[in-house]
Formats: sequence, C-alpha cells, structure tokens
Amino acid sequence: MAGEFDLIARYFTRPPRAGATAGDGASRALAGVALGIGDDCALLQPTAGMQLAVSTDMLVEGRHFLSTVPPDRLGHKALAVNLSDLAACGAEPLAFTLALALPRGDEAFLAPFARGLFALADAYHIELAGGDTTAGPLNICITVFGQVPAGQALLRSGARPGDELWVSGSALGDARLALEAFRGRAQLPGDGFETVRRAMELPQPRVALGLALRGVASSAIDLSDGLLGDLGHVLKRSGVGAVVDVDALPRSAHLAAQAGPLQHECLLAGGDDYELLFTAPAAAHAAVRAAGKAAGVALSRCGRIEAAPGLRVVDAAGRAVATPWHAFDHFA
Amino acid sequence: MAGEFDLIARYFTRPPRAGATAGDGASRALAGVALGIGDDCALLQPTAGMQLAVSTDMLVEGRHFLSTVPPDRLGHKALAVNLSDLAACGAEPLAFTLALALPRGDEAFLAPFARGLFALADAYHIELAGGDTTAGPLNICITVFGQVPAGQALLRSGARPGDELWVSGSALGDARLALEAFRGRAQLPGDGFETVRRAMELPQPRVALGLALRGVASSAIDLSDGLLGDLGHVLKRSGVGAVVDVDALPRSAHLAAQAGPLQHECLLAGGDDYELLFTAPAAAHAAVRAAGKAAGVALSRCGRIEAAPGLRVVDAAGRAVATPWHAFDHFA
Repeated sequence: MAGEFDLIARYFTRPPRAGATAGDGASRALAGVALGIGDDCALLQPTAGMQLAVSTDMLVEGRHFLSTVPPDRLGHKALAVNLSDLAACGAEPLAFTLALALPRGDEAFLAPFARGLFALADAYHIELAGGDTTAGPLNICITVFGQVPAGQALLRSGARPGDELWVSGSALGDARLALEAFRGRAQLPGDGFETVRRAMELPQPRVALGLALRGVASSAIDLSDGLLGDLGHVLKRSGVGAVVDVDALPRSAHLAAQAGPLQHECLLAGGDDYELLFTAPAAAHAAVRAAGKAAGVALSRCGRIEAAPGLRVVDAAGRAVATPWHAFDHFA
Repeated sequence: MAGEFDLIARYFTRPPRAGATAGDGASRALAGVALGIGDDCALLQPTAGMQLAVSTDMLVEGRHFLSTVPPDRLGHKALAVNLSDLAACGAEPLAFTLALALPRGDEAFLAPFARGLFALADAYHIELAGGDTTAGPLNICITVFGQVPAGQALLRSGARPGDELWVSGSALGDARLALEAFRGRAQLPGDGFETVRRAMELPQPRVALGLALRGVASSAIDLSDGLLGDLGHVLKRSGVGAVVDVDALPRSAHLAAQAGPLQHECLLAGGDDYELLFTAPAAAHAAVRAAGKAAGVALSRCGRIEAAPGLRVVDAAGRAVATPWHAFDHFA
C-alpha cells in the first residue's frame, strides 16, 4: 500500500497551470494561487479590492452520500456542493483545499475520485491549493475560496417585503426522489431512475447565475437542506415572511408522475438540490430573466416576500398546503 | 438531543468582536472577517498588498489524538496544529473555519471542546468565520487563514548551503514521550507524565517566532511528522543536504532521563512537536537570536545545510548516529 506522501503526490499534485507563477510567493497580476501544494500553507492572491468568500463542507457516508455512489461522482459532488455556496454569494471561484480521511490508501477509489473532482475544478478553472490526507472513516472536507467585490456579495439578509421569490433549475426535488427510489418508496420506470440519480450524484453548481445576479438579487441562498428550511434562514436573517406557490415550483416529468404528497415533500423538504433560491424587487423582474438567460439556467418565480413573519405555502388557487416536514437535520 | 442548528448556535456562534462590522459585507479598514457565521460563505478582507496564507488539517481519533484526551485540550490542539502551519510561513493569523463530525450531539463533549478552541482563538484575536457540523465518526477539520506581505512568506524551498539549522523550544520529543508512556514503553516518575502529556495535548504554536523570522530565516517548516521527515521536505524542496547534531537538540529532563535509543527516536522521529525548524545564513546568527528573544522562545542551533544531498545525523563528537525510523505516515 502506498504511503501518505505517495498518495498525495500521485493523485492530488498536478503541474501548475499556464500563467501561474511557480514557487516563491511572488505577487502576480492575476488573482489565484500564488503558491500551491507542498509547503506549510498555500498562498492566495485575491484581486485588489476584492473580498475573499470562504465556505467549508464536510461530507460523511450515509449522511451526505450513499455507499453506492461511484467515486468519480463523489469527487464531483464534494466540490460541487462547495461551489454552490460560492454561487449563492455571487463569488467567482478561485481555489479549494481538500482534507480526506480514507479507511485505506485505496487506488480503486482515489483514481476515479480525483478524476471527478478535477474535471469539475477544471471546468471552473480553479486549483487544488492544499490539503491533508489521513487514514480514518471516509470523510471529505473541502474548503472553497472565491472573490467578490467588497459590498457586492449576495447575502441571506437582504430580502424585502414586495420582493419576488425565485428558484433556479427545472427539476427541483429530483435528488430527493432518487433517495426515495433507493429506499424503495418511489418507483421510476424506464431511464427515470438513472436520470434522477444523476440529479443526486452530479449536481451542477449555479456559479454563472450567482455572478449574473450580483446587483440584481436582493438575497440568495443555495438549496441544500430543503426549500422550506433554507427559505426559513433567509426569512429569519431578513426579518420578513413569505408565501410560496408550490404549483410554481419547477419539476421533472419523473417527479410530476409521483403522488401529490411525495411531490410536495421532494419539492419543499427535499434537500441536495443545489439550486439557487433568491429574491429580487419586482422592478428587477426583467433583469432577473436576463440573468437567467445569460447564465443558461431556467428560472421560476415561485412566491413573494411579505412583511408579516412566517412562511405560508399555497397552491395555484391560493389554498393553504400542509407542510408536515422539518428541515433536514444532520443530527435528527 | 439538540438539532444541528441549535448546536451550532449554542457553541459556535459568538457576538461579533468590537471593531468588526456587522452584516452586509461592507469593506472595513482592519483586516479580518467582514462577514462571519450565518451565510453561505464567510467574507474575509485581507489588508491591501497581503497574500492570504491557508492551511487545512484533519484530525482523526487514534491517528492524531487518543480517546483519552480531555475535550478542552482537543479543541486547543485542533486549532494549534493549524496555527503552527501559519507560524511556519510567517503569517499573521486572521480567522478559521471548523468542520466537525460527531457521533452524537453531545454537550458533554461540545461545551469543553468549544471552550478550549475559543481560548486559543482569543489568545490570537482570531474569529471562527464559518463551518459545518454533521453526525459521523469523530473528525475535526480546521482551515486557518493568515496574511503575509507578498513575497515574504517563509517557505520550505529557501535553505542554502552554509545556512545554520535551528529548532525552537526546549522540550523536543516530549509529545512522543507521552505517547510512549501511554503505550507503556516509557516510565515517568512523579509529575513527569502530566508534564509530557501537556506537551502532547496542549502544543503552543510558534506564531510570534514565525513573524519575527520574516526576513531573517531562509526556510522554515513546522515539526508535525518528526524532525527527520520534516527536514527531509525542506531538503527536497531546497535541493540541498544537511547534517544534524542530535546532542544539540533541546530536550526536557524527563526525556534526558530515558535510555539513549528512545531519546533519539523521540527527538528525531517523534512527531507532534509543533516547533519551528528553520534555516538562516550564518551572517544572520545574531538576528536569529534576537528573533527568539523577541518572541520569548528558546532556540537551538542544531546543524547546518550542505550542498551534498542527503541527511546525516551525528553526535557532539561528530560520530554518525543510526536513524532506523521512518517519517510518521498516516497510512503506514
């Protein structure tokens, strides 16, 4: 079995990208990684005037992914859920660190894991700046770095009464539907299972949309714990309430074919969607549509912010919809 | 049992420090955390012209700490080993994130863990900027952020032939001696066990020394995997060799009372020391002494850098000393 240093070298060290300065921490004109893997610290150089956006997520088997996930998809997802946090802040991705605990120095896992991870990193032109590898129960902890002009980050605290509520994507709840299919609670004919499984295992972070929404959206959050729970964070931080039209939430044909209560559960309390939920003044409606078009992401207006506190879910006819679920809680 | 959000709120959210701006990501004159816990990302604001130094360490039970460690000491150590990486780069600590997997939402663990963690954070005036909490086998992943003027970071690659080799502290190897005492391989009379146990469980990161060595040291690394292994990283990155005088390595009376082979093993291959090992030109000898005095840290000159590759260990009389150990490997 290969030793720690060998494993790091083999799977996680890559030649510097063109344009990156090697070695000794000299400043560089471009933002990014001035010094990468191989020293006590990595050195990051944000562009002058930018704030550094930082987010960290820890993924544990059985909590954040199933043991059935192919390692290349797990590598993708571990980075995608972190990039989704940058997207929700409107930050431009710069770099990430990876800390990895593995039961064994297992090449059959590491090779495809690294392949999936770096494929997504390359798509966003970001570098692995540093990390740590150890033996232990499987645990993946990624910290991601982005930059955003000072004062322009999209926050949870900016929703105002009268704002429209928007959600990205066209298949909200499919990740949860996949989980229910694994659990045997949902049946999916034909290629339905493989399609929703991709939603769960290969989420696409909405980075381009987050950037396009700077100066347009009044607040934003990424959907990781379920729409109602995540919207609750926005309402609490903003000191407002909201009404959500469940019939306006975008769903796939696979989800639309399920029974009504399961549809509602997947849409409203699903988790693992990694879509952006955001608010914008009604006057910015056209600007929101333009941002979605520029980013190539479908957007649905699904509610509005109100001054009265609380979260009310209705159907297209305005009737109250029952919401007997709790936000996903990793200790529940 | 408390839910995830309750746990985070109770133990890891604290009121903003005086001088920190609340909320909306406005720029601030001081470097630090512009936006902390509670949004998708934290926002960091390094001082203009500074590079951001980043390091991440993952701690797993049985690998990086024993199950017998008191939780307050574990909280201290988890942050200390990360601050030690900043020290080795000569970076000024700014902030950190914490990702924590816990088998249970266990207040008997969390309360003292947070107390130990924040006591050290407060000593360095740094904030917990963000994090993640989940259920899972105990795993602590901290990412730490510091800043250093562009081009002034202490790196592993700067050692040059003729440089003197230095190590900080007065009790190298005591952490390993404590481990051997737990294993029953070493006997420690009187208060000896409690003293060396503190070395293992409460390491003091050499942050002030790292800052004082900017512009003085030619290379630096922190001792986490054992002196020979860590020095090997410096030699490899710098393309040089070294001779180490084992008799010049600083040791406690507890270690000096042990048999010679165990002394050598603890000093040269111990691990968990979190002292700084650094090089400086002979002409900077007085400046090194002044840096140690300014930082209040004992320094020992323990060897020299040579052009010939390889690592030679000798005693005070110049005789070769056997080194039959390997660098600590988390997968060995």
